[in-house]
Amino acid sequence: MSYSPGGEVICAVILAGGKGTRFWPLSRENCPKQMLNIVGEDTLLRQAIKRLDGFIPLDKVWVVTTDILSQDIRFHLKPLGRDAERIHYIIEPSGRNTAPAVALAAMTLNKLSSDSVMVVMPSDHIIRDTKQFHDKLRLAVEAAQEGYLVTFGVVPARPETAYGYIRSGKPLRKSTNEIFHAEGFFEKPDWETAEAFLRQGGYYWNSGIFVWKASKILKEIESHLPSLYRGLQKIGELNDLRNEAAKEIYSSLESISIDHGVMEKSRDVLVIPADFGWCDLGNWTALGDVLERDEQGNILQGNPIDIGSENCTVIACDRVLATIGLKDMVVIDTADATLVSSKEMVHEVRKVVETLKRNNREEHLVHRTVERPWGSYTVLEKGDRYKIKRIVVHPEARLSLQVHRHRSEHWVVVSGTARVTRGEEVFDIHTNESTSIPIAVKHRLENPGLIPLQIIEVQNGDYVEEDDIERLDDDYRRVKKG
Amino acid sequence: MSYSPGGEVICAVILAGGKGTRFWPLSRENCPKQMLNIVGEDTLLRQAIKRLDGFIPLDKVWVVTTDILSQDIRFHLKPLGRDAERIHYIIEPSGRNTAPAVALAAMTLNKLSSDSVMVVMPSDHIIRDTKQFHDKLRLAVEAAQEGYLVTFGVVPARPETAYGYIRSGKPLRKSTNEIFHAEGFFEKPDWETAEAFLRQGGYYWNSGIFVWKASKILKEIESHLPSLYRGLQKIGELNDLRNEAAKEIYSSLESISIDHGVMEKSRDVLVIPADFGWCDLGNWTALGDVLERDEQGNILQGNPIDIGSENCTVIACDRVLATIGLKDMVVIDTADATLVSSKEMVHEVRKVVETLKRNNREEHLVHRTVERPWGSYTVLEKGDRYKIKRIVVHPEARLSLQVHRHRSEHWVVVSGTARVTRGEEVFDIHTNESTSIPIAVKHRLENPGLIPLQIIEVQNGDYVEEDDIERLDDDYRRVKKG
Repeated sequence: MSYSPGGEVICAVILAGGKGTRFWPLSRENCPKQMLNIVGEDTLLRQAIKRLDGFIPLDKVWVVTTDILSQDIRFHLKPLGRDAERIHYIIEPSGRNTAPAVALAAMTLNKLSSDSVMVVMPSDHIIRDTKQFHDKLRLAVEAAQEGYLVTFGVVPARPETAYGYIRSGKPLRKSTNEIFHAEGFFEKPDWETAEAFLRQGGYYWNSGIFVWKASKILKEIESHLPSLYRGLQKIGELNDLRNEAAKEIYSSLESISIDHGVMEKSRDVLVIPADFGWCDLGNWTALGDVLERDEQGNILQGNPIDIGSENCTVIACDRVLATIGLKDMVVIDTADATLVSSKEMVHEVRKVVETLKRNNREEHLVHRTVERPWGSYTVLEKGDRYKIKRIVVHPEARLSLQVHRHRSEHWVVVSGTARVTRGEEVFDIHTNESTSIPIAVKHRLENPGLIPLQIIEVQNGDYVEEDDIERLDDDYRRVKKG
Repeated sequence: MSYSPGGEVICAVILAGGKGTRFWPLSRENCPKQMLNIVGEDTLLRQAIKRLDGFIPLDKVWVVTTDILSQDIRFHLKPLGRDAERIHYIIEPSGRNTAPAVALAAMTLNKLSSDSVMVVMPSDHIIRDTKQFHDKLRLAVEAAQEGYLVTFGVVPARPETAYGYIRSGKPLRKSTNEIFHAEGFFEKPDWETAEAFLRQGGYYWNSGIFVWKASKILKEIESHLPSLYRGLQKIGELNDLRNEAAKEIYSSLESISIDHGVMEKSRDVLVIPADFGWCDLGNWTALGDVLERDEQGNILQGNPIDIGSENCTVIACDRVLATIGLKDMVVIDTADATLVSSKEMVHEVRKVVETLKRNNREEHLVHRTVERPWGSYTVLEKGDRYKIKRIVVHPEARLSLQVHRHRSEHWVVVSGTARVTRGEEVFDIHTNESTSIPIAVKHRLENPGLIPLQIIEVQNGDYVEEDDIERLDDDYRRVKKG
């Protein structure tokens, strides 16, 4: 079921290129905030797409993301069902800001139909009241079809210094108070200003959700960001975002947000006040606004052992985490990295990520356990010339037929049955049996059974990194990564 | 070389039965504080014994400890050299307090010679000035031979509420101010009292180091702790501390410290003021007194990534630990457990240990890496019906010849050469080769080479705990543990 007022194409554009710095160590570069299940029953990205159900079908959804994330996001969206395969992807040639990303999407959709209406949404926000969200979307689509740039202004619940604001002006129509001309955009205010905004009324949190015709936003970009528009036209002529020339042009585009670049300048902006339980999880402290606290003001997840802490967010994994007498702190424990921070300074976590990057660590890139379309692997230990993984293969799934040039592998089955292709042989091994794959011999691991297959893999070699893999055949159309 | 003024036997009695609660998670039940290398160049226990060098030889050292710790301590002391084998052990039938432990040692030494002088010392203190320590010991031994109970009183450097105090009275001899009659013992005072002690002078920190003749302390125990004395006599008649009856009697003895039970009551107590850089590491906050802090007042060990913390103790392991904006905190990270505490409440760590015990966890008992006389093993993962270990075997060392009733094992060599005994076969496997040991087949792993052998062991079975081991032959005379 979808909403289709006058036969026009209504499309969702979901911005999902976020890098996952602010929620480190739970988020990593290949598993950013939008792919985390921290609030609600699913990950933020899947919730964002499910939220469209009944309004925009999956084959009218465009996910804008980076090359590095696109494959993982495609696998990540598989649980949405068979139609998830019909979701479209726009790969940003490099990570810029929202204006280039929106322009890229608008150009793509405008080619489909000059009447295309785009609903642009971040992939990492929370909206609790889906029914109201749909009602407001309907209003917004109508106004967009009249040629307006429509945004949602969230009715502020408190003075808030972490959000931008929009001031509403005159109502668009005399008959209703549901939609207004926007009179101004304001950056994150200081506390006094935020209080004044709340007192005066008519100020709303900028939700970052926009609705407009693709043709209209392109016109606005042309007039307010002419050099961006010209760059984009050149990219459009190349007709291939993976083209080196396209990458070069894109990375030279101005890194500016659509808010700054267009919304603040255009005269055709409308704001629809909304109160649908919206929240932008800016960093760890924002969890306190959306998750329930205990009597001491704590959010405790994953069974930490806590003694007498107050007003803290503590997330444990299966390691033992003990917290004693903490106040206003954030403690996040994962298998390979732990963050302990005062709430006041938790925004500095980006510096930790920068340090890891500088030191050539991997803990900002990937988790110890990496999800794959066929299952997952967990790096148990990496040493000099060896690496040990636990590999889980879903029933009836299989890894690619592959070759490694620098390592041999030993496999010990700890549960289930493994079907092994080794050179020209194919044979099964069961729990408590093992086999080995010499260097440079093509091989494949498959689970022919009905329960998950678990094996321990011991890799030996001069070089035991993930990129030593040559795929000869793959069920998941992958080219490079393991 | 040793000190032997009149041919009498001078013995050291080192109390090493501590349970390792207050320094969790660095300390564990099988690796308590005295076995940690946190201050100085060696572990506290080995430093305690090395400190006697030139005064008491190793064959006159008695280590009093518990059954559970004795084997690990024996291995732990091996690096002290060949004479370490001549160290004696007194196994407490159960963990009581210092009075029963001292009485047990006195009974043992009194049998050697009624003139035996005992130097009783904790195993987990710091003494920086060994020369002065020896000088004071000489004084103490002389006075002990005259029949006194001698203790060292540490000249207080500051008002301190974490130590007990001793008040000195008249000098023992008119000619010297080095040794005094003790006038009173005081429990840990409050801040005001501690300040007054410092102001008034003549008050010393109770070092917990005592020197006396074995026969003298036994007489004092007989008169001040008669029921303890009677119990001990019965145990002496049994002539075997491992006897069930001995265990029963010992565990019924009054759990009282030698300070409370004897020193506070006896009229023959002397105190020797000392200033030899003594410190009792009571808990994590005490590290601040003995380790150097940086300009922000922090002690940072093991390369944590810190941003803007002040007055904190942060110890990282090889996992990533990031700390941001902390004040007056203790953060201790180990492979399998992390403690985050305010300094003020860090004494509550014992409750964490109790909780782990109650929940049948293992993180209060052992570390992820366990040292063994032949090398070490690290548990990489434990799952349902399987366990994965990395095993390191020293050159020319070997594990016991053993049998498991409930698990098979797969071994993959990642470095070095392994000599494998399996049933009646003996064969070598090298890097990148593997073998497997079926259930109930006797086997042995040996490193015949000159570099450490590293193998990955995958255990499969219904039951994969350490106690499924039957030792048929062992180079280290072990009976039960793996």
